[in-house]
Amino acid sequence: MVTDQEFTSQLLEEAVTQLSRLPGIGRKTALRLALHLLRQDESAADALGNSLINMRHGIRYCRICHNISQSDICPICSSPQRDPSIVCVVETVKDVMSFERTAQYQGLYHVLGGVISPVDGIGPDRLQIDSLVERVRKGGIEEVILALGATMEGDTTNYYIYRRLEGLPVKITQLARGVSVGNEIEYTDEITLGRSLVNRTLFTDSFQH
Amino acid sequence: MVTDQEFTSQLLEEAVTQLSRLPGIGRKTALRLALHLLRQDESAADALGNSLINMRHGIRYCRICHNISQSDICPICSSPQRDPSIVCVVETVKDVMSFERTAQYQGLYHVLGGVISPVDGIGPDRLQIDSLVERVRKGGIEEVILALGATMEGDTTNYYIYRRLEGLPVKITQLARGVSVGNEIEYTDEITLGRSLVNRTLFTDSFQH
Repeated sequence: MVTDQEFTSQLLEEAVTQLSRLPGIGRKTALRLALHLLRQDESAADALGNSLINMRHGIRYCRICHNISQSDICPICSSPQRDPSIVCVVETVKDVMSFERTAQYQGLYHVLGGVISPVDGIGPDRLQIDSLVERVRKGGIEEVILALGATMEGDTTNYYIYRRLEGLPVKITQLARGVSVGNEIEYTDEITLGRSLVNRTLFTDSFQH
Repeated sequence: MVTDQEFTSQLLEEAVTQLSRLPGIGRKTALRLALHLLRQDESAADALGNSLINMRHGIRYCRICHNISQSDICPICSSPQRDPSIVCVVETVKDVMSFERTAQYQGLYHVLGGVISPVDGIGPDRLQIDSLVERVRKGGIEEVILALGATMEGDTTNYYIYRRLEGLPVKITQLARGVSVGNEIEYTDEITLGRSLVNRTLFTDSFQH
């Protein structure tokens, strides 16, 4: 080899190294992406590079709900069309996007930034739980919807939040558990099936949606 | 939804759009990568973004062999340790890297930029074949190794180059075809097996490597 390096160009080496730091991208994929950019116009690499830099510098977290935002308070929290009396507690900003896509929810959010997971060393102090309690304590919130994943960690976190909010004048609800739309009964696990029996709803209610 | 856009931030939208222009990266993966960068220090996004921009602006193609290079002539072509009398003809810059990793080759390269493929509309004029003929015509090259893929397109291109170089005082060789090292006979196709029989080598020759 000409040099100790894998490539004949330090600039390529550096780009591949940086790309391979992204999750799920190994050096082989990183090289493929870099060579793709080399085949494109210079403007393509400029647009990609600058968009990443601008995004990282321009995006902050909403002071109220901790969702990503370009201003101090995010567009959802500051929207006059949203109902500020309902707060949906989610794990990540991705979950906010998922609920927004349903176009069914008009309340606000509260992004915890994760769930309690002793195995991963994530305690309640690492999550935005204190600020949720503070939001509720300030008043004006009538319902808190716990919308964490149906996992052991999600359940633990739900219970922890429930205990922290106990005694405050707020209704605490959680997402319905049941058979996923489109799923066969045959492939639904028995815990979900059991819950969907216990929490069965009036058939005529389904006509309203 | 708050806006017509999928995300609550235009900067995130732009980064996801740019990332998803990369080959093999869909919008879901692009979003995962963007959110990962948002969780890192600002320096991480700066390093990645700038490395892509710098690479694209800094890398050119070697005037002689068309390999990627940061100077007019690449480090391989300008190295006094390489043998300029042998030229290995490859399809892409990735192939140069593959051969360099073997640490077995001390000659120079010639990167065609593809292979002849009527289906994809790639004719000989789209490839760096004229410049190869010119290199050989100038003299000093004793052997041209055809190292294209063992595909129909590779074979067609090999034959085209062979015809173009016919009559010039140069030896034209091609890579040995045979059973891949580590492969079972059972899983080797019969054409390769047939070739490996016809081109069998002295057993004692294998001791020298």
